[in-house]
Amino acid sequence: MDTAEFRRRGKEMVDYVADYLENIEQRPVYPDLEPGYLRSLIPTEAPLEPESYEEIMYDVERVIMPGVTHWHSPNFFAYFPAASSYPAMLADMLCTAIGSIGFSWAASPACTELETVMLDWLGKMLHLPESFIAGTDGHGGGVIQGTASEATLMSLLAARCKAIRRVLETDATTSESEILSKLVAYTSEQFCATLGTTPSCAFDRITELGPFCNKENMWMHIDAAYAGSAFICPEFRPLLNGVEYADSFNFNPHKWLLVNFDCSAMWVKKRADIIGAFKMEPLYLKHENQESGLVTDYRHWQIPLGRRFRSLKMWFVFRMYGLKGMQAHIRKQVALAKEFESLVRADKRFEICAEVVLGLVCFRLKGSNEMNQSLLKRITKSREIHLVPCQLSGRFVLRLAICARSTESRHIQQAWRHITQLAFELLQEQPH
Amino acid sequence: MDTAEFRRRGKEMVDYVADYLENIEQRPVYPDLEPGYLRSLIPTEAPLEPESYEEIMYDVERVIMPGVTHWHSPNFFAYFPAASSYPAMLADMLCTAIGSIGFSWAASPACTELETVMLDWLGKMLHLPESFIAGTDGHGGGVIQGTASEATLMSLLAARCKAIRRVLETDATTSESEILSKLVAYTSEQFCATLGTTPSCAFDRITELGPFCNKENMWMHIDAAYAGSAFICPEFRPLLNGVEYADSFNFNPHKWLLVNFDCSAMWVKKRADIIGAFKMEPLYLKHENQESGLVTDYRHWQIPLGRRFRSLKMWFVFRMYGLKGMQAHIRKQVALAKEFESLVRADKRFEICAEVVLGLVCFRLKGSNEMNQSLLKRITKSREIHLVPCQLSGRFVLRLAICARSTESRHIQQAWRHITQLAFELLQEQPH
Repeated sequence: MDTAEFRRRGKEMVDYVADYLENIEQRPVYPDLEPGYLRSLIPTEAPLEPESYEEIMYDVERVIMPGVTHWHSPNFFAYFPAASSYPAMLADMLCTAIGSIGFSWAASPACTELETVMLDWLGKMLHLPESFIAGTDGHGGGVIQGTASEATLMSLLAARCKAIRRVLETDATTSESEILSKLVAYTSEQFCATLGTTPSCAFDRITELGPFCNKENMWMHIDAAYAGSAFICPEFRPLLNGVEYADSFNFNPHKWLLVNFDCSAMWVKKRADIIGAFKMEPLYLKHENQESGLVTDYRHWQIPLGRRFRSLKMWFVFRMYGLKGMQAHIRKQVALAKEFESLVRADKRFEICAEVVLGLVCFRLKGSNEMNQSLLKRITKSREIHLVPCQLSGRFVLRLAICARSTESRHIQQAWRHITQLAFELLQEQPH
Repeated sequence: MDTAEFRRRGKEMVDYVADYLENIEQRPVYPDLEPGYLRSLIPTEAPLEPESYEEIMYDVERVIMPGVTHWHSPNFFAYFPAASSYPAMLADMLCTAIGSIGFSWAASPACTELETVMLDWLGKMLHLPESFIAGTDGHGGGVIQGTASEATLMSLLAARCKAIRRVLETDATTSESEILSKLVAYTSEQFCATLGTTPSCAFDRITELGPFCNKENMWMHIDAAYAGSAFICPEFRPLLNGVEYADSFNFNPHKWLLVNFDCSAMWVKKRADIIGAFKMEPLYLKHENQESGLVTDYRHWQIPLGRRFRSLKMWFVFRMYGLKGMQAHIRKQVALAKEFESLVRADKRFEICAEVVLGLVCFRLKGSNEMNQSLLKRITKSREIHLVPCQLSGRFVLRLAICARSTESRHIQQAWRHITQLAFELLQEQPH
């Protein structure tokens, strides 16, 4: 494919993407097929000779689309949202085309520098304490990780490295296995200090945990993967109070802040802590500016060596929405969750199972776990909407998360009508 | 930005990308700026109100491009290649638009199933032993990791988990810290068993290492991050002999197989080994098909929970190039490296420092390390081509890697003329 053909196919793809998203509601949100469906639809080996682009795009509809769970359908209410917006998609095209690998400052200075500044912008939107902001002379700063799991792992490794060093400073003769056997990590059922858990969007009391961690010289990492995006709104910012005690903090703009996956924002108070755990300096990655103190070599902040130019997505989204536009997006989705909550509360057969703070509603039929499992099975089978369950204190609970940017009030009303219709049928069949 | 505007802006972006790549040679390959350049060019905070798309694209040229190291310039010979092709870029647009997160089969069946089959296709292109192929009833199989570092970490964790289990099977009373203190990892200077090291593209003798590892019941992981792509050519496949002894193997199609970053292909002989180390099953990720034995939930194979639909890039590239097209790409780049090698060998002032097996040439001026450092400094400063150095047995060596898809013979000839001109000037200035 030469550049001329790319111009043509690229524009066709833009239209295909626009058509897909514009008409996504017409597709069943959840696929109707059996595991292993795809293998029988395509050859067992790659072709020897090139195939035509038409054949491939034909197969996108024949092979791929029937097997896609449409996360951006307005009827998708499962898990948590996967962020998506047109500005982020445009930035992603640019990121792919530039195709630089930003493991060091020199490998593509713009990639590193825009990332540092975008994490500062975002940190300021969240009113993070000054100590997390890189600025021109700070000791803290931010980085884009792929996912919250990676951010958590990085904080764990940095904490471990710091603890080992502390022991060795006191007694340099301590053996490594002796130190390792003494290290302790405290977690709740949901792992580290969490703001907005996945099952029910619950919040740990970090204003209580924080001072304790600081006093005991323990590393505190706070994960607000989903909820973090909401903290750009002043009315939700109090949920982040206590972050001043944390050593590291992360949340996922790729969940709820309109920046397509992957983009997990992580900040640390002391860059030296995280860099110290991973520094590696082969000659082929050295560059003349690295000792200037002004540059960041992000490979020291993460597990992978390579990294994409992901801050472009943030830059495009932050500028094309503006803070007010992003706040409006969060508020609209919280309002939709509240609307659904009201519908549930108005129906005596149902109950709300956790406080609705942001965009997630946990609810169930008053009755047995089995009955709620049956209800969810019917919902899944109908393929009109898609939900997943959670377990709260031993009870089987349904989760409705506001996910797609295209979800409107009518989808909420429709979803509720659909759920109550299936519940009605189910209850009719129950023995009295 | 609504869908109508996205159609317009998306097509403009396709043209911007095509123009960028078509005219990339006119940009200096390496930026001329000081660390911290970007911060002064943009505001310190995100805007409150939305900005226009025109302003942002204006800033792409004003703020971003001057700070980009152009990895896809035909004059970029640093590090190793970052793969890029138009079919992969089109597939990436589709991947972003679908925007599904494939942590489980149910979260998007097509995402999981295409990945398994694409890793089978690729494994067959490499003539991997049957035990690495998933097929319909195999015990092995492949997965896309983000980078080779992640693949290596996964294999290390799986090996550790397997070793701990083995001890506990013999003596269930052994304490965990006792076991941990006994675990050993053997590595060379370049870490695990490597085919094609980064400094000089050297190859470990895996036909010798392999039987030893198998006999001692040690996990063998082979990393062929760069070189792996070449094994699709029969003439280079012997370099992979011995892979039959490995427990896990990985290489990066995102380096040399035309699939844009990130796409690191990893295979294991026993899926159970890698899954066993990481299985986690909260209720919200369970689905009715997961116990059927037919489905793969890739979240058990990796550090992150979320994952993009990256196999689309492989599918587009494999089909639009065909195996023959991909082989031609590899052969062309190896031939360019050989062409450069001949030029170096024909000049008595220079020497070749490592066998040129694939697309990397390690060379230096006969003389001191200081002289070669000076030569590289002049090359970097001229910004006509971009190289990085390596250290081989204490000697400072220059690396020229064939990277961009657009590099042709004339760029090699031009690069050599440029290097010899700078070397001539340098040698003239030396005291006699």
